[in-house]
Amino acid sequence: MEKVIAYLDANQEKFVAELQEYVSFPSVSTDPAYTQQVRACAEWLVNHFRTLGLSSVLHETHGHPVVLARTFKSEKPKRPHIVVYGHYDVQPPDPLDKWVTPPFQATIRDGHFYGRGTADNKGQHFVHIKAVEAYLKTDTDLPCDITFVIEGEEETGSTGFASWLKENAASLHCDAIVISDTSMPAPDKPALTYSIRGLVNFEILVEGPGTDLHSGVYGGIVDNPIIVLCKLLAAVHDKSGRIRIPTFYNDVKPITAKQKSILSKGSIPAKQLKKILGVRAFGGEKGFTLEERRTSRPTFEINGIWGGYIGQGSKTIIPSKAGAKISCRLVPNQDPHRVYNAVKKFLTSLAPETVTLRFQYGAGCKAYMLDPDTELAKAALTALQRAFNKKPLLIKEGGSIPIVSEMTRLLKADAIMIGFALPDAQIHAPNERLDLECFRKGQYTSAFLWQLLPKACK
Amino acid sequence: MEKVIAYLDANQEKFVAELQEYVSFPSVSTDPAYTQQVRACAEWLVNHFRTLGLSSVLHETHGHPVVLARTFKSEKPKRPHIVVYGHYDVQPPDPLDKWVTPPFQATIRDGHFYGRGTADNKGQHFVHIKAVEAYLKTDTDLPCDITFVIEGEEETGSTGFASWLKENAASLHCDAIVISDTSMPAPDKPALTYSIRGLVNFEILVEGPGTDLHSGVYGGIVDNPIIVLCKLLAAVHDKSGRIRIPTFYNDVKPITAKQKSILSKGSIPAKQLKKILGVRAFGGEKGFTLEERRTSRPTFEINGIWGGYIGQGSKTIIPSKAGAKISCRLVPNQDPHRVYNAVKKFLTSLAPETVTLRFQYGAGCKAYMLDPDTELAKAALTALQRAFNKKPLLIKEGGSIPIVSEMTRLLKADAIMIGFALPDAQIHAPNERLDLECFRKGQYTSAFLWQLLPKACK
Repeated sequence: MEKVIAYLDANQEKFVAELQEYVSFPSVSTDPAYTQQVRACAEWLVNHFRTLGLSSVLHETHGHPVVLARTFKSEKPKRPHIVVYGHYDVQPPDPLDKWVTPPFQATIRDGHFYGRGTADNKGQHFVHIKAVEAYLKTDTDLPCDITFVIEGEEETGSTGFASWLKENAASLHCDAIVISDTSMPAPDKPALTYSIRGLVNFEILVEGPGTDLHSGVYGGIVDNPIIVLCKLLAAVHDKSGRIRIPTFYNDVKPITAKQKSILSKGSIPAKQLKKILGVRAFGGEKGFTLEERRTSRPTFEINGIWGGYIGQGSKTIIPSKAGAKISCRLVPNQDPHRVYNAVKKFLTSLAPETVTLRFQYGAGCKAYMLDPDTELAKAALTALQRAFNKKPLLIKEGGSIPIVSEMTRLLKADAIMIGFALPDAQIHAPNERLDLECFRKGQYTSAFLWQLLPKACK
Repeated sequence: MEKVIAYLDANQEKFVAELQEYVSFPSVSTDPAYTQQVRACAEWLVNHFRTLGLSSVLHETHGHPVVLARTFKSEKPKRPHIVVYGHYDVQPPDPLDKWVTPPFQATIRDGHFYGRGTADNKGQHFVHIKAVEAYLKTDTDLPCDITFVIEGEEETGSTGFASWLKENAASLHCDAIVISDTSMPAPDKPALTYSIRGLVNFEILVEGPGTDLHSGVYGGIVDNPIIVLCKLLAAVHDKSGRIRIPTFYNDVKPITAKQKSILSKGSIPAKQLKKILGVRAFGGEKGFTLEERRTSRPTFEINGIWGGYIGQGSKTIIPSKAGAKISCRLVPNQDPHRVYNAVKKFLTSLAPETVTLRFQYGAGCKAYMLDPDTELAKAALTALQRAFNKKPLLIKEGGSIPIVSEMTRLLKADAIMIGFALPDAQIHAPNERLDLECFRKGQYTSAFLWQLLPKACK
């Protein structure tokens, strides 16, 4: 291992230059105008893997291509197989004028690497590529087979990738999946994210009269779709912040004492959190701590609402329709479709006969939780401890990474989520950045992982 | 009177040509680009009055000018004084491409006079000008003094006009106000609108976190302003459609047996009304007929609602704020400010401490009702009966004409609302039109009014 770490230390400048090259591709997956550059980026990556001595292939999907790269299998039988997942596509760089240096000309400044994709996600999966390179270039024995699966559609919902994954799952069965697409709380606080919430989103439309009506001439005899929508949505939460939809909590398991204890350690002081969020008081479900509500309880959120006239001044109408965008965060064991159907049934049961309700399913993913007591989790924590020389945190994340739950199911393995982006990494925003120290220690973590994970897999 | 009617009959072509000239001014009051043309229209009108032998003056206001015209007072003392109100400003003509013939080149087609302002309101107050002309040109004795007050801001809220009216009220005190800015149900159904509802409108804003938040990271601990808004607005109506706001109904008088009887006569069959409105079932307050709800009960309506993300796809945020535009129709005796304060107090009392509520008062006007048993109302009905040779209807209108209540208060007189526009007059829409037969019979009605009103005033 000393050779590996020494190789990493000696090559930081080269790695930074390579990452600059990787970041220079505007691989914006949402915008068809960038299709060629998305492909060029994938081709660069395939080539890069090959120069390191991996076997790499570009796989076509319905959407953008997937880059697959494998370390050559040794003759030793039954070596553990680890899949590293990442994505080479990036968010659009807008607004361009807010960038201090151009988004696709990655620049070093005040100890950070600035550029679109440095944190989300090129720089983060690059640490694993560099760690594997260090093993290969120093002729250090890799105790496992490693497959890199780097997709190009994460920012657009991974639809082509998800289909491809289903078709190719058998050849990707593995003992663990390593994903670096999360955050760590501070440069000296490495973290294993052992739990993320799932998600389901959908739209509801309330249709009333055939056209907007004069509220003077017809006000009093026609049900107002906005009022109906408000009544439906207002019925979802009771006074204690609990969701009243029958069966909604059926699959939710209680938060264990151990989880509560882990959560309490990572909690941000309420006063500080209020200030960050700009709220006078917290809301949510009674009977749970802030951290529990934020990470371990399902939610029902209205992300957007519309209806009627919202321009300058007044327009005294009864609108013909009104709608809302809704999303629910889910916890382990909850199924997006089951939750959607429960919501639909509940709201439909409340709707008056004066209106028509329409629902439109959006997308859904399950929550994912790795038992922190598993050998895999412990190996990840040890790797982080050695790389950062700090006791790592166990983190539950309230957000969702849609592909994780599906990937663990298809690849029949647990996922280790260790992220090296800091909370101020400006992900999806201008001046996205990656701390250079985290970049380096991420490589160390990865190098230790290849030693520790195989033992944990056994 | 025969001479007067004969004069009207003999001059229809001339009147149409004059109205064409009057309509040719694009006197769009809302758009500053038309300011000069609004003034030019007013000046044309002043001049027109003068050619007929009236004394006419342009009065400046904070906004667009008011045209004032008076018949010369005879020597006979104590003649009744009647004020005719109208407005020479018009709605914008958009969308222009939907007009069969240009909006400001009034055209005769299939028995109608097409053009912006033909029905709302140039053509309607023009009938009174022409009737007075017939008296003057035929040397028929006018049994009353008549003052025309034709304003230029009705379509923008009459703010300049309202101030002017307050300052000039004393010189306008009268025995009756005649307004033709309403409709009649059909060409053979002349009508006196004896009641209109009042109105108050305002906005409510719910402010939560300082900025939109990630619904994954913070969902569960921050109250969602859209959900809070929905809960507030959902609390306004009870299950029977009654408004739960304390004191809201305090000033509402019961609908009398006589009013109920009048309403039942003018009711449109429910089945037909459902079809027109495109609704499967009616809504509103239980315990009242459709006509009662539509004309004689106050309402609470949400005219628009907004909050969060409403573009394509999903954006999983907790929005920082949400708002709604609200209006209440009022019935006689209700005060707009009192109702507004009651709503504000009620909603504020329900709001959680997690959010800030902001209210913005818009505008308000009181309802107006003329007792159909008064001599004035009877005179108007008789005039309509003679002109149309049909029994006129008594109509309660659910809409509002903001200036009416204020004008009757300031001028210390009752208002007679007789409209000659048909329900399909396309008011505020492309291809606005005035039925030529209604235009002519409107002139007859006016001619009879000048005979009948003075007797009723005594």
